[in-house]
Amino acid sequence: MTRTLFRGFRLAGVGAVIFTVAGFSLSAQAAGPSGKQIARQTCSACHGLQGAGNPQAGFPRIAGHPAAYLEAQLRAFAAGQRANAIMQGEAKQLSPAELQAVSRYYAQLESPARVVVNAKPQTLREGRETVVNGRWQKNIPSCESCHGPGARGIAPSFPPLAGQNVKYLEAQFRAWKSGHRPGGPDDLMQHIAQQLDTHQIHAAAEYLASLPPTGKLAAGTQADVAPSIPDALPGYFQPPIEKDLPQGKFGESVHRGYLIFTRTPKYAVEYTGNGLSCSNCHTDRGRQANASPMWAAWVAYPAYRGKNKKVNDMAMRLQGCFRYSENAQGSKAGHFPPAESPILIDLESYMFWMAHKAPTGVKMKGRGYPRLKNPPQPYSRNRGEEVYARSCAVCHGSTGQGKKLANGEYAFPPLWGSDSYNWGAGMHKVNVAAAFIKYNMPLGHPGMLTLQEAWDVAAWIDSHPRPQDPRYHGGLKATIHKFHHNRKIDYYGKTVDGRVLGAPSPGKTGQNISP
Amino acid sequence: MTRTLFRGFRLAGVGAVIFTVAGFSLSAQAAGPSGKQIARQTCSACHGLQGAGNPQAGFPRIAGHPAAYLEAQLRAFAAGQRANAIMQGEAKQLSPAELQAVSRYYAQLESPARVVVNAKPQTLREGRETVVNGRWQKNIPSCESCHGPGARGIAPSFPPLAGQNVKYLEAQFRAWKSGHRPGGPDDLMQHIAQQLDTHQIHAAAEYLASLPPTGKLAAGTQADVAPSIPDALPGYFQPPIEKDLPQGKFGESVHRGYLIFTRTPKYAVEYTGNGLSCSNCHTDRGRQANASPMWAAWVAYPAYRGKNKKVNDMAMRLQGCFRYSENAQGSKAGHFPPAESPILIDLESYMFWMAHKAPTGVKMKGRGYPRLKNPPQPYSRNRGEEVYARSCAVCHGSTGQGKKLANGEYAFPPLWGSDSYNWGAGMHKVNVAAAFIKYNMPLGHPGMLTLQEAWDVAAWIDSHPRPQDPRYHGGLKATIHKFHHNRKIDYYGKTVDGRVLGAPSPGKTGQNISP
Repeated sequence: MTRTLFRGFRLAGVGAVIFTVAGFSLSAQAAGPSGKQIARQTCSACHGLQGAGNPQAGFPRIAGHPAAYLEAQLRAFAAGQRANAIMQGEAKQLSPAELQAVSRYYAQLESPARVVVNAKPQTLREGRETVVNGRWQKNIPSCESCHGPGARGIAPSFPPLAGQNVKYLEAQFRAWKSGHRPGGPDDLMQHIAQQLDTHQIHAAAEYLASLPPTGKLAAGTQADVAPSIPDALPGYFQPPIEKDLPQGKFGESVHRGYLIFTRTPKYAVEYTGNGLSCSNCHTDRGRQANASPMWAAWVAYPAYRGKNKKVNDMAMRLQGCFRYSENAQGSKAGHFPPAESPILIDLESYMFWMAHKAPTGVKMKGRGYPRLKNPPQPYSRNRGEEVYARSCAVCHGSTGQGKKLANGEYAFPPLWGSDSYNWGAGMHKVNVAAAFIKYNMPLGHPGMLTLQEAWDVAAWIDSHPRPQDPRYHGGLKATIHKFHHNRKIDYYGKTVDGRVLGAPSPGKTGQNISP
Repeated sequence: MTRTLFRGFRLAGVGAVIFTVAGFSLSAQAAGPSGKQIARQTCSACHGLQGAGNPQAGFPRIAGHPAAYLEAQLRAFAAGQRANAIMQGEAKQLSPAELQAVSRYYAQLESPARVVVNAKPQTLREGRETVVNGRWQKNIPSCESCHGPGARGIAPSFPPLAGQNVKYLEAQFRAWKSGHRPGGPDDLMQHIAQQLDTHQIHAAAEYLASLPPTGKLAAGTQADVAPSIPDALPGYFQPPIEKDLPQGKFGESVHRGYLIFTRTPKYAVEYTGNGLSCSNCHTDRGRQANASPMWAAWVAYPAYRGKNKKVNDMAMRLQGCFRYSENAQGSKAGHFPPAESPILIDLESYMFWMAHKAPTGVKMKGRGYPRLKNPPQPYSRNRGEEVYARSCAVCHGSTGQGKKLANGEYAFPPLWGSDSYNWGAGMHKVNVAAAFIKYNMPLGHPGMLTLQEAWDVAAWIDSHPRPQDPRYHGGLKATIHKFHHNRKIDYYGKTVDGRVLGAPSPGKTGQNISP
């Protein structure tokens, strides 16, 4: 019995563990054969030996899904957390090693690219809106935010949805709504399912089912400059939507601005010294209230800023973003874009357009990040570490490194380290990060963290190495004295785990990654 | 009889004509003695020998008034155009030479600086509003616009008003309203008098009476950044007023922007290559609808401009103003301010503040200069010359040279020649100038000129030499081909009075005054 072949083995963990059975070597990559046998015997009746599933019956396509994801699902079925009598019965019979093997087997199969589309164009359009643009009026990001471009999944936690069958997808939403399936990381899917109505779910499922799981990305899988329907949170300013986009040269500038804003390391490569895009901190393409939206920022400048002790127009303000949040010192150019740079002009065009009809000079509701109350207890980076592992690591990685796509662009931004914001960015302040987190994270489920958790996890994130403050001058003490007064919310120069944060790397000038 | 002393003489004209009587030499400057005799005998009973007038009786102070102005008034009394039986009787008895002599006598007297102020502070404040800030809601500029800083007059046509007595001033307004006094140049004063109510006239008169005619300017005689009361033309956007001015560093930037805007050659001296201020074409400090107001411009940028084939943010747009309208090529720096220049930032602050609450990206009613209909007949610079002489020369000078104050700043801007806008400025186009003129000129009486007159006089103004187009390259023909397509509204390169307009001066590179 294949089922018993590995029964005696207990693997300590996943990964490229190599072990030997009956005289031949099996690497994780070579687990296919036995996995295939399990699949043939146990899974293929419903899912097929090629993992294509059964659309009519609503059995999911599982080919090409991340092995860890599949294994986790099998465990959840076995434990009864995912309610399905058949799957529970089958999963319970498999040993941990067998669960892993069969998961790996299906994971390495390429999902067939061909999909059959029966839905009406209007349904697909509506579905695309959820999948590609999100439903930000309910704080729901696009499916692609987590499931990747073309909804092809981001391993290990986010399965592909492209080409998945409609019946299965709809059933999952019902299961999340009813509690028959765990909500997944941060209960995200349960929360999202509760926000969407049956019609929206059906349309999204139809659109997802229409997407090819492999091969060239379908047209229209890139998010639009703006959603097709109003997306403002209730009671907040509504920026213009896709149909309002201007034509001609100015429209082209808006579009370029959008690309720079949402894919900064690619479209402003010369001046970007890390892996962050503007849209990482200004969610929904800079449109979302309480995430420092661009429509509120546009009407607030020129303004005096204590940070550089000058009145800043928008071009200068954006230079500040590049200098700190984008760590321009580490870029090819080594500095932020000059004032006349088309990059700044295009960003201004994009912001200006987004602020259409917003009253000039008025403090808009939803601007910046809301001021956060102090936490009940003083914040603790140790408690924050736990929050981070539980709620953040699934996207941002256990060491804050974020997650890259195959094309080298980040799917989830790095929160510390050399590819994150530097010690001069506003986000390095615990209070700023805490406010952003409380009101915007986790994406799709903001408000989930308590006030205390938001502060704690912000402390954890902001007490790690990151690129040097570009204003570093005359040593750490002098730099602290000049730019890092507020010691209550600032780890710069503090000793954490034996490292002095912000200290220049040995032999470096202070303009490099630190400590 | 003094009156008969020169009866036999007829002077051909005014000026430094020297003639000899009874063996001693009399220059125009030395006409005092005989003028004084006429004054003693004829005028002093009412006006005083020192020309201080009689406030109780309402007899005007005339000391220090421009001789030409006084002489013109005496002629008007003599001819019955100014209705005053006593003055008519006296003036009629004087020969032209005597009129001139007595006018010169009073003109060279220094008006005593001391004034007696009886008015309530509130009245003075209200009066100051008209005198210093204007009543632009009725298209009435400040009194100081024509009568100069501190209302001390601008010779030869605009008499001093500072220290003039209330009774006399009020009587004049009544006379203008009733037609008992000619309206003066362009019927300005008649038109203005009809717009003001008795209370406003009284308050303005009280304030004017309180101003010292000589010595240091009283505090508060410089126009404010904004008026104290709403000043929008009915139905147009109302920019914020003086009480809305922001405090702190940003407020200081707004204030500097205002100074740069209204006194550009002084406050942006490095980048200004002519005698024009922004406010010359953007009247009421850039606030007036249909005079390309700054609140409308602010919310219209960034925008694509065919002129430089780029999307321009406001800093770039302002650079264009400096390049052309301010003829930066002739400035100390030799070019427009760089993008990060505080001059641009301050101008942006000023504009941004002025646009407070204006909806971003919306085409505001009153923006730019209204599009003008074509004239009934093709425009004619020859007819325009007549219009100019009749309606414009009083301020802008018979050769378009404008009028400078003693401090070197222009009271009235030059319309052509080396100190005016260059061949690249929008205003060099006849249609643009005609629209500006029709809706804004003469200051205080816009709309006075017919459509035909506006076009004709614009043609006259724009068919004179002015600084070279800074884009001049590869000769006149190539420059015309590239930048001066629309030959219907453009004199650049045309031959007028034997000169080729826009042709570089002999031996010059083309970056200089032309032709």
